Amino acid sequence: MPRTTLHTVDVHFGDCDPAGIVFFPNFSRWMDAASLKFFMDCGLPPWRELVKTRGIVGTPLLEINTKFIKAVTYGETITIATWIEEWRDKVFVQMHRVTRGDDLICEGREVRAFVKRDADNPDRLRAIPVPDDIKALCS
Amino acid sequence: MPRTTLHTVDVHFGDCDPAGIVFFPNFSRWMDAASLKFFMDCGLPPWRELVKTRGIVGTPLLEINTKFIKAVTYGETITIATWIEEWRDKVFVQMHRVTRGDDLICEGREVRAFVKRDADNPDRLRAIPVPDDIKALCS
Amino acid sequence: MPRTTLHTVDVHFGDCDPAGIVFFPNFSRWMDAASLKFFMDCGLPPWRELVKTRGIVGTPLLEINTKFIKAVTYGETITIATWIEEWRDKVFVQMHRVTRGDDLICEGREVRAFVKRDADNPDRLRAIPVPDDIKALCS
Amino acid sequence: MPRTTLHTVDVHFGDCDPAGIVFFPNFSRWMDAASLKFFMDCGLPPWRELVKTRGIVGTPLLEINTKFIKAVTYGETITIATWIEEWRDKVFVQMHRVTRGDDLICEGREVRAFVKRDADNPDRLRAIPVPDDIKALCS
Repeated sequence: MPRTTLHTVDVHFGDCDPAGIVFFPNFSRWMDAASLKFFMDCGLPPWRELVKTRGIVGTPLLEINTKFIKAVTYGETITIATWIEEWRDKVFVQMHRVTRGDDLICEGREVRAFVKRDADNPDRLRAIPVPDDIKALCS
Repeated sequence: MPRTTLHTVDVHFGDCDPAGIVFFPNFSRWMDAASLKFFMDCGLPPWRELVKTRGIVGTPLLEINTKFIKAVTYGETITIATWIEEWRDKVFVQMHRVTRGDDLICEGREVRAFVKRDADNPDRLRAIPVPDDIKALCS
Repeated sequence: MPRTTLHTVDVHFGDCDPAGIVFFPNFSRWMDAASLKFFMDCGLPPWRELVKTRGIVGTPLLEINTKFIKAVTYGETITIATWIEEWRDKVFVQMHRVTRGDDLICEGREVRAFVKRDADNPDRLRAIPVPDDIKALCS
Repeated sequence: MPRTTLHTVDVHFGDCDPAGIVFFPNFSRWMDAASLKFFMDCGLPPWRELVKTRGIVGTPLLEINTKFIKAVTYGETITIATWIEEWRDKVFVQMHRVTRGDDLICEGREVRAFVKRDADNPDRLRAIPVPDDIKALCS
């Protein structure tokens, strides 16, 4: 079993749209928070520290895939279970399973990469091979 | 060629994260705006009118898939080209191609359904067969 | 001392802007969540229930005033203390004091009103006198 | 008359809450975009350039005050007129007047300061005296 962390979200009025249900981009927002929480729970410092010590700016997305099964509204609490499904050379696949009690709400699959700023053009971000120590910490 | 509409977005400071690039859930937000703009450009009224005349609340997402190719920052303008790739019985596939000038920024694929409130439980939304007149308007 | 409730917020990467600090409209978003939490902690149901039983849609803002004292970044936790400073005939003043440990981060003052939909034009919201039972619950 | 710029916003479905009206923190978000647009229309580069040439990170908020007069919903377009009301030594007051056609929607008053990173602690932002050339450009 891969290492799995839990992230709890209380859904608020302002997270919902005129249909009264969560406006779906908020699920991506919460999964992103769950993604960083996963790394910090595994022992990594926040990105603003890691950029100073190792030049790693974060783990931007290359691809997301989310399936929405049930709607959620404000006043409800959801839990996001997060783990790394697969480590490849320069990218990794992070999964998020969102539940409300026994109900499966949605499932997200993210392809991410660790990135540094390009030496020649700091406005440009470049994927680096997944560092072995981070891989060991997070598996 | 399917009917295609364009939606332009000026990217703002607050849309960007500490890495200085667009926080990715904003792309889902902008694609959702492009989705409704598509329907309104095709001649549909806003959902709050359609719910009164036909009970249709909107087109919630069943699935999203987005590939991110290049990063964007504030002060830049992106254009979203939107069309319906496929009409199925109760769902449809809407595509969004996001560009900045000649650069492809990201591509989104959304599976959506037209929904009404359940007669027995108005808090519950139910997919309906895609109405023929809407399909004709939007193809 | 007026009744006071506490709302805790974990600040996430996506809440921060390219300067690395919380993008300030998020404080309004969190204060709004603290506002509804206050009413629910005092015993009110969520607005979607109250609209069914009493026609009350929520407590939209008439005015906000926020003073920002210190910046906050992701990975930090803030606490919002919320109370009603003043009940007037048709409006009330709700206060939010945001701290991070001993640091005062910001203070918000909101003027809000309980509203119902206009009988003649349901798209229009109308302030009602603050209901006495709600006032009693929340003081 | 102080120099005034206009910023137009199309209001989208996802900007609105379960009451069907704009979730109010979005007005702060749009005023922030109008604020930066003001400076760029006056001839300043985006902050990410100004930080390289002059160390100026941006203009964070010290205080906001917003009065909400009418509600807005999706499908509507609003215009934000923005100007500097007052230049003080280390802060300035920026005003935003939001209209929908002839309707006044809301009015915002922001107290902001130009900031640089502290030489000893780059995580800390420090207000600087308003640069004279910027003041001249923007008056």
